[in-house]
Parts: sequence; C-alpha cells; structure tokens
Amino acid sequence: MKYQLAIIGGGPAGYTAAEAAGKAGLSVVLFEKNSLGGVCLNEGCIPTKTLLYSAKVYDYAKHAGKYAVTVPEASFDLAKIVVRKQKVVRKLVLGIKAKLTAHQVNIVNGEASIIDAHTIQCGEDTYECENLLLCTGSETFIPPIPGVAEVDYWTHRNALDNKELPASLVIVGGGVIGMEFASFFCSMGTQVTVIEMMDEILGGMDKELSAMLRADYAKKGIKFLLSTKVTALSKSEGGTVVSYENAEGTGSVEAEKLLLSVGRRPVTQGFGLENLGLELTERRCIKVDEHLQSSVPGVYVCGDLNGVSLLAHTAVREAEVAVHHILGKQDAMSYRAIPGIVYTNPEIASVGASEESLQKDNISYSAIKLPMAYSGRFVAENEGVNGVCKVLVADDGTLLGASMFGNPASELIVLAGMAIEDGKKLEDWKRYVFPHPTAGEIFREF
Amino acid sequence: MKYQLAIIGGGPAGYTAAEAAGKAGLSVVLFEKNSLGGVCLNEGCIPTKTLLYSAKVYDYAKHAGKYAVTVPEASFDLAKIVVRKQKVVRKLVLGIKAKLTAHQVNIVNGEASIIDAHTIQCGEDTYECENLLLCTGSETFIPPIPGVAEVDYWTHRNALDNKELPASLVIVGGGVIGMEFASFFCSMGTQVTVIEMMDEILGGMDKELSAMLRADYAKKGIKFLLSTKVTALSKSEGGTVVSYENAEGTGSVEAEKLLLSVGRRPVTQGFGLENLGLELTERRCIKVDEHLQSSVPGVYVCGDLNGVSLLAHTAVREAEVAVHHILGKQDAMSYRAIPGIVYTNPEIASVGASEESLQKDNISYSAIKLPMAYSGRFVAENEGVNGVCKVLVADDGTLLGASMFGNPASELIVLAGMAIEDGKKLEDWKRYVFPHPTAGEIFREF
Repeated sequence: MKYQLAIIGGGPAGYTAAEAAGKAGLSVVLFEKNSLGGVCLNEGCIPTKTLLYSAKVYDYAKHAGKYAVTVPEASFDLAKIVVRKQKVVRKLVLGIKAKLTAHQVNIVNGEASIIDAHTIQCGEDTYECENLLLCTGSETFIPPIPGVAEVDYWTHRNALDNKELPASLVIVGGGVIGMEFASFFCSMGTQVTVIEMMDEILGGMDKELSAMLRADYAKKGIKFLLSTKVTALSKSEGGTVVSYENAEGTGSVEAEKLLLSVGRRPVTQGFGLENLGLELTERRCIKVDEHLQSSVPGVYVCGDLNGVSLLAHTAVREAEVAVHHILGKQDAMSYRAIPGIVYTNPEIASVGASEESLQKDNISYSAIKLPMAYSGRFVAENEGVNGVCKVLVADDGTLLGASMFGNPASELIVLAGMAIEDGKKLEDWKRYVFPHPTAGEIFREF
Repeated sequence: MKYQLAIIGGGPAGYTAAEAAGKAGLSVVLFEKNSLGGVCLNEGCIPTKTLLYSAKVYDYAKHAGKYAVTVPEASFDLAKIVVRKQKVVRKLVLGIKAKLTAHQVNIVNGEASIIDAHTIQCGEDTYECENLLLCTGSETFIPPIPGVAEVDYWTHRNALDNKELPASLVIVGGGVIGMEFASFFCSMGTQVTVIEMMDEILGGMDKELSAMLRADYAKKGIKFLLSTKVTALSKSEGGTVVSYENAEGTGSVEAEKLLLSVGRRPVTQGFGLENLGLELTERRCIKVDEHLQSSVPGVYVCGDLNGVSLLAHTAVREAEVAVHHILGKQDAMSYRAIPGIVYTNPEIASVGASEESLQKDNISYSAIKLPMAYSGRFVAENEGVNGVCKVLVADDGTLLGASMFGNPASELIVLAGMAIEDGKKLEDWKRYVFPHPTAGEIFREF
C-alpha cells in the first residue's frame, strides 16, 4: 500500500497534519518514536502550564488577603503536583490518539528513517508514500561550558519531573523556558538566580515590557544577572557553582540545582534527512516555500525543524497549510501575526512586529502605551498589580504589533493577532464591540 | 456660550461620548445627577465583578486541593470585600473624571431638564447646545407582586452594599443580574433559591449552555424553580416568605433576604424628554437610526434609554457612532455581534445569533459543539470542571453565533465577535494563529 501522506514526528505539526489529512480522506501513516504530542505536550507547553497553574493557585492563597479573603496557611505537595501534571498529559495524549484513530491514521510507534522521498523504513517494515511531511521538532541545546560534563544539571525535562523543592536554583538562560521555571520555583519558595547572556531577558519579546516583568520578579526575590556569560560549572558540596563574567568583572553563584535553558536546536540527525538532499537557506535551515514545501516536490517541512519560529502554534498552522497544499486547497503560511507568550504570573505576550524589528527594517511607527488599569476589570481583579499594554502603529494607522504585560495576556493577544493579520487600522479594530467589563477592552482604549 | 454637544447622563454612553467629542475638539457639557460612570460603574458591572473576584479567590482557596495545594482553612470578611469594592469604584470614577477634564468637558453635577432640542436647564442655569445626546440609562423594575410594598427587599444596589452574609436568600428573576448574585452568595455559603418565570435561566443566552450552568449551580447547592410565578410576598419572623405557583401547584419558600432582579426599564421620566416629542417605535421605545439619531435632527439617544440592548458595551459603541456622526465621520451602529456575558464561575458568554433567533427568522444553520477539554490549557487549569463551546454556522460556512461555558469565556467571546462582525467563514477564521496553549484555541478546533 502506498500512503498518500507519511509523517515523521507526532508533535503539534505531525498530529495536526495527520488529523487534517485523515479527515480529508487521505491515507496517512504517522511515525513517532516516543509519545504522541511531542515535546509540547509531553515535556513542554502543557506540563509547564499544569505546574504553573498549581503555582498560581498557591499564589492566590498567599495573596488572598488583598481581596479580603483570609487564608492563614497554605502549603503544597510537589510530588502530587507532578503526578497531576502526568495525568493531564496522559489525558491529552489519549485525546490526540483517539482523534487520529477516528480518522484512520496509521500510528507507527518507532524510529523512522528516510530512504528517499517516497520510502520510509521503520524497524523491519518499509512504507511507501506519495507525500512526506517532516516534523521531527527540536531538542535542548546544551552549551559547551567548561565543566558542564562534570556537573549534574537539569534540562526542562528534569525540572518538570522533580518532586523535591530545591532551596536554591540557578537558571542559565532567561528566555521563555527559563523564565517560566523561574516563575514556578519562585512562587514555590526556591531562591532563584537567572543568568542571561543578553542585556534583557525574554529575547524576542518587547524589551520595555520584559524589563517590567523582570523588575516585578526581582521584587519577588529572583536575582538577575544580565549581559553575563557563564564561564565554568563545577560541583560543590551544596550543589553546583556557576562562575560567570560580566562588565563588573567575574563572580560565582552556588545553588542546589542548575537548570540549563539556553535554547533549542532543530533535530536534523538520525532519520535519514541527508538522503533527501534538501536545499538549505543561508542560515543553514531547510528551505521551504509558503506552502512549507521543500526543494523536493512532495516533501514538506513543518514546525521547529524548519527553524522559522520554534513555537507549537506556528507548527500547527504550518501543518494545516502543508496539508491544504497537498489537497490542492488554496492557502499560504503567514508569519505576520505569530503570538509569543510567557506564562509567568503576570503573563507577558506579544504578536506581530516588535520595535526592534521595525527599527531594523527602517519602518516608521508610533508606540502607544497604556496602563492595564484603563480596564475596570483589570483593576477589580488585580489589586496592587500593574500591567501595561502597548501597540505599534504605522503612519497610516495600520496596526503592526502589540504587547501586553498582565493577566490574561495569553488569551487576549490573539485579538491583536487577528487585527494585525488582516492589516486592520487601529481605528477600525476599535469599532468591534468588546464586552464590558473585560481586560481585553484595553485594546479599545488606544 | 453654545456647546457643540450637551450630554444628559454620565454612564458608559455619556462618558464615552464626552471623551470622544472632547478629544475631537468639540465643546462639551455633561450633566450627571449622581456619580460619573452610571449604574455600570457605580452599582453594576464593576462592583459585581469586584465582589465576584473575591468569591473566586475564596473558591480557589476552597478547591486548592485539586491542584495539590493545601489550604486547611479559608474565611472572608464581607465588610472588607465591600470596602474594597468601593475603593475600586472610586478609583475608576476618578479615572473617568480625569479623562473628561483632560479633554475640557464641562461636567455639571445636577439634574438636567430638557427645554427643547437646543436648551437644557440645570438648577438656576440654562445651557445652549447644537447637539444633544440623551443617555439617562435604566432603572430596576420592581414587579407589582402582592405584598411587595410590605416586605424588605433588596435590589442589586442593596445586595452590593450588604456587609453581613445572610443564611438564606431568595432571588426572584434568574437573568444575568440574578445569576451573578446567586453565584456570589452561593460561593460565600448562603443557601440560595432562584425563582424564574421562564422555563430557563439567563433569557438571552444559549438555552443548552444555560441549562448546563444551572445544573452546575444546582450541584453547588442552589435551588432553582423554573416556569414559576411569584404570587405573593409577606414578612415572616425569619425574613420573607415568597409564595409561588407553577405546573406542580403552589408552594412557598422562606429566606432571610429577598433580591428582586426581574429586569430593568429605561429612565424616560423626570428630565423633560416629553418636550422633544421624539418618535417612538412599535415597542414604545425611542426610535433611532443607525447613527443613533432620533427623529429630531441633532438629538441622539444611546445606551439603555433606547431600549435596544441594555448593555454597557453596546452603549459605549453607540456613543462612539453618535459622536462620529456629529463629526461627519463615516460610521454606523451594528448589532450583529453584541456579546452577552454572565460572570458566574464558570462564566458563560455568547455573541451573535442564538439558535432561537435563527429558528425564528427561518435561517438554516448547523450547531457544532465541542467540550472545552479540547483545549489543553483548559484541562490544565480546570480540574474536574466541564465546559462547552458551541458555534452556529450558516450553510455557506459563515459564522453566525458562538457561545461558551467555561473560564475565561468573558475574555474569549470577542474573538468570535470579531469574526461574526466581519462575516467570516469558520474555515477562514481558523486560519489565524491562535497561541498555544490557550483556552481560546478551542475556536480552531471546529
């Protein structure tokens, strides 16, 4: 049997494509060597959000007094939080499996290897396919810091399954993953230090709002070392010593645990990718067109593997576009309004262009900033908490970008995303009836 | 001095119009006899949400165990909750005042009376105006139930300022206001009974989702009497006895407190409206066109007073449209995507057409329903809580309506509102990149 679509990788891109293709009546085989759902569902987006929600509930309890609710004592059981996390993941993995099975997708549990664009080997079996979708995702990049091989470090995976709260934690890398764990462990009572090479945490986000988030967490007790390079790691009695240097000189910090979260790299080895001879971009990523098709017709590359955005929701949308192309349905990938979210408490989110990207591209714009307190609901539900919303507007009024610092930014940012994707002018966007009172109404206030 | 715009009523319509007109350089006088912000800010939307948020924090504490957080004991101080509510309201009223003052709006505290379309009397003073915007809002309708004059009843206003938790409460009227208070008092521990004349609570909302919300609150201990008419009210030692009749016969329920929330009526008396001789509709409401202009040129009627939707966000948008018309800016009011929200816990929200309205209008549609558990974030943050999302789609795929039962429906429903207002097809709406993981992603799953 020749499958109409073979998919390597069962993460967000893979399962989305499999479901969409199966629903449309294509015969589909999907190869996954670990668990359906990929990093996102098994050890990324979902498990972190489950942990972070327990932290939020604990935060609510600790700060209930602000709302005239008295909670004399609150505690938590980290082992149980981890067990719940596993339960949530299991439930969602089963949900995906059920959907794929309902659409007659053949799920093959094993390591696939590409023979050529139409032939996949897995174990003893060979599978033929008309189209091939590659979405093997990414893996944690372990930086070659002197001593890294000698110390016990955590990646996000260990941090997720850890059942005993460390007294102290050093996080190397203040990006999204680093800051979400920093937020979690800070809420739970760990003394957290974040070391970041760049001059601000959260690389891709709005710099001004990122600095506000950082100031907020500094107040909550997190120690930040920016523009700081880690020079060595070594074992100590108390855990690990992290040596660093920055403009002020050299120094070191010791902590019970060390989390490395400096970045992720596409998984390009171990599945015969080289046998396809795909064209690469200048940045050494696989070249794809607006339909996610590579230089070899019928071979599509979605998700982290193509190196464009490394976000689950980008992967999902890319997978849909690829399947639409296979089905001959008009569609094309747009990266104009990809949201980015950090699930700290408060959350920070952004979508569209950033000030940095507009400045780099020499695009003239205005930045308008409003306190979240312009929303009555935000005031009602955020006692003593500040928030900010910022929009970037072109000279003709077209909305180019938006950022928000304040809950529930994660759920609201797509409102700006829809407007940006449609090329709406700020004035027209404001003509929708936003319900009152909501935090989302802030967008009408610009 | 002749003002370019005089506004009677400082609620959402009034303050929005005043700010927009002032910003555009018009000379504006605004008359408000009580407090800026109207019912919405002073005794409606905002204060209820403040109270409900304390209830939510208390709920979080009581149910923290679901997330492996232990809270052995939680209590609350209702008097302090009410004080916080007043503080929040005060802050927001001052915010409005500051905005209006910044735009040179002349705020007159007093009862205005219309002499004619260009002359307003307030106290000793007479004000001339080119345009007149009427937005006097609405007031609680007290039903003429036998005995109502003899018993002590609450309206929403008393319920908001009440500082001692009643052991029991009967709520007559299970609409939005009734259900929000039912939710609040149920969370706090009061034994609540809701009596509703119709066969389902929450009149305008999706019937199926309303029934789910009702079942949820029935489990939490609220007693519902549907299709039940209150026939008499009388004082008793323990409070009030409410007699009723329904298909099963007659009965009565006694409670410490009684809240009447059967509806609201536009305020049409007491400010000389009759001097304008405005044309009325068949339903005896003031007739306005798509610019909110009445039959008298230059006289605009916005908000609850025109009787169209009785929602703060409708009033806000109407006020903008009216001011745009005065300024000669192209705009028109659309009621196609007005959201409706009930801030219970979980929330319920809807926008656009309902199944009932489509059936009445003989419009062919499909209803598609999904459990909120299709969203990974919803699963992570709602242990043991069910939710449902429903969309109504025309035969050509155009999105007509959407409803959601589950948090944070209030903040998400406008996503559907934007799509409905634009006449989007479901398939196109799903092509936006919704961030992952969010509850809002559920809309992509249809």
